[in-house]
Amino acid sequence: MNVADLTHHLAEWLQGGGSDGDVVVSSRVRLARNLAGMPFLSRCTPGQVREIAATLRGAVTKLPLGNEGFYADMESADPLDRAVLVERHLISKQHAEGSGPRGVAVSGDEVVAAMVNEEDHLRMQVLGGGLDLDNAYARIARLEELLEQQLKFAFTSRLGYLTACPTNVGTGLRVSVMLHLPALKIVAQLDKALRAARDMHLAVRGLYSEGTEAIGDLYQVSNQTTLGVSEERIVRDFCDQVAPAIIRYERTAREALLKNRRLALEDRVHRALAVLRAARLLSSEEALYLLGHVRLGASLKLLPEVSLRTISELSMLTKPAHLQRYFGREMTASDRGEARAGLIRQRLGGP
Amino acid sequence: MNVADLTHHLAEWLQGGGSDGDVVVSSRVRLARNLAGMPFLSRCTPGQVREIAATLRGAVTKLPLGNEGFYADMESADPLDRAVLVERHLISKQHAEGSGPRGVAVSGDEVVAAMVNEEDHLRMQVLGGGLDLDNAYARIARLEELLEQQLKFAFTSRLGYLTACPTNVGTGLRVSVMLHLPALKIVAQLDKALRAARDMHLAVRGLYSEGTEAIGDLYQVSNQTTLGVSEERIVRDFCDQVAPAIIRYERTAREALLKNRRLALEDRVHRALAVLRAARLLSSEEALYLLGHVRLGASLKLLPEVSLRTISELSMLTKPAHLQRYFGREMTASDRGEARAGLIRQRLGGP
Repeated sequence: MNVADLTHHLAEWLQGGGSDGDVVVSSRVRLARNLAGMPFLSRCTPGQVREIAATLRGAVTKLPLGNEGFYADMESADPLDRAVLVERHLISKQHAEGSGPRGVAVSGDEVVAAMVNEEDHLRMQVLGGGLDLDNAYARIARLEELLEQQLKFAFTSRLGYLTACPTNVGTGLRVSVMLHLPALKIVAQLDKALRAARDMHLAVRGLYSEGTEAIGDLYQVSNQTTLGVSEERIVRDFCDQVAPAIIRYERTAREALLKNRRLALEDRVHRALAVLRAARLLSSEEALYLLGHVRLGASLKLLPEVSLRTISELSMLTKPAHLQRYFGREMTASDRGEARAGLIRQRLGGP
Repeated sequence: MNVADLTHHLAEWLQGGGSDGDVVVSSRVRLARNLAGMPFLSRCTPGQVREIAATLRGAVTKLPLGNEGFYADMESADPLDRAVLVERHLISKQHAEGSGPRGVAVSGDEVVAAMVNEEDHLRMQVLGGGLDLDNAYARIARLEELLEQQLKFAFTSRLGYLTACPTNVGTGLRVSVMLHLPALKIVAQLDKALRAARDMHLAVRGLYSEGTEAIGDLYQVSNQTTLGVSEERIVRDFCDQVAPAIIRYERTAREALLKNRRLALEDRVHRALAVLRAARLLSSEEALYLLGHVRLGASLKLLPEVSLRTISELSMLTKPAHLQRYFGREMTASDRGEARAGLIRQRLGGP
């Protein structure tokens, strides 16, 4: 498989059926590693950068990535392909926009992605649908073991794994969940919930932001502490305390809405679905916004005709780069608005 | 018939089929008259007010108002009935909110309405669908002849008919059309067109206004000059020059939209219809706003499944007092929002 094929696949984490999928869209664990005996990238010579890229490309492509797994060289990649990888959460925006020898290995199911020469020499992630951090951590730990059989990572007994940015030193582990929190927003308890998360030393950010608004009510919550705690402890805290607390907040808000403001809720979700089914022009932001409402309606069984899987698929497929790859041509923003509306109308059964 | 029955009828002017109905919703001529030998109302004793009311009630109920015609006494009328009459454009807001002996005679088809003791002793109107000023004027002139067989109106050869407010002195005639001008608004030429109308000494106002916005893009254009010109001249100028000029402006704007911005136009009208068909809560203002877009879509054959008649009927039936009379109970604003949305969904074939 290559990047161009991705837009005709649905990544495993988007296929639905994950645990607590009504609130948790996806779970991710990420490890940052650097090769021992090599400087951090900012201090490398061009030759050293090339050497690291070659070494790690060799190592990550030997990982079990499935038949469909592939390595994409970012230096030679088409800008639209890079944008597709960003939209699929397989590489960072910085990696797409960077320069020099660098790339990403992706497993066929898109569960595993390993960026070579991003901020660190290696950044490897495992992505799962719903709340799935235990499995994700177990998998990334096995992958790291495999890599350590071939490579030696920079490590000191005092600090743990060394990383380019001090915030990652220690475990190099970042654990995060993508949450859909529309009800907390509606009942005006979102700030309170997010403040509580921040008090637990978590980083919270809107996944797609416009000003202070998180479009589609999607938030990414991740750990900030990597030094002085074990990997297992980070994952345990997240699974046993952080995630259940936020999920509980959101579900309580949803129940309150169903009980006290059911009509306003129905109004909101039915309008959103109706506009998606009728619009002839849709911006990426408006599509995300409306799909967010429809996701809430589907989770609450107010819109039984729409599946979370369809919503996830459309949320991905209607992003700018995906849309262009899907239709096989470059498009202006207004062409995309028309194509996006047409695709959504077709998939959601509009007139 | 009485006021309570009105909400189950569709006034003749709302039934559609009038001339230039794509732009002109309705035409109205109105005569102001006062009885000779009686002071204007502001200078009357209570006894004189009662005497005028009795005299004019006797006269207007003898007019040919059809089998279903009726006289409604405003002094004893239920506030909701008065509000229904205002919403149907059969009485003014001032007449509803006034005090003392006063009333209105209404013909069964609602073409003729004669207010007794509003600002003047008598204010009589003829209301028609589409552009229909010639017929409306001919009809009101005949009605006035009939009244002059029984009554003597205040008149001087120098000033013409005398009225309580100097702006009506002379002919006492006010000619107006209700226009739907959405395209001029979209192409940002509305101010120019309305300025041109004002330069022709016409009064222009949004029919339902919120701030500077005319909700539903409905405007009422009327003559301001009543002194020094004949009735026939006022009507002729309006029919031959004013109305055709504005209609032409609006149609040119619609053609330009269809030619240059067809997709954006389709987007707008399809979204409006979809929201009307899906909403569970709708305010009176939003309903008017969306029905205005749907009216444009129907006029341009972009929404062939919706008739102008249905839109007119819903525009009337979903006003606050109508809604309560239609459903036969008093309702809070939020109850009305639900009932309004339900009625619209049912009539427009929503899910």
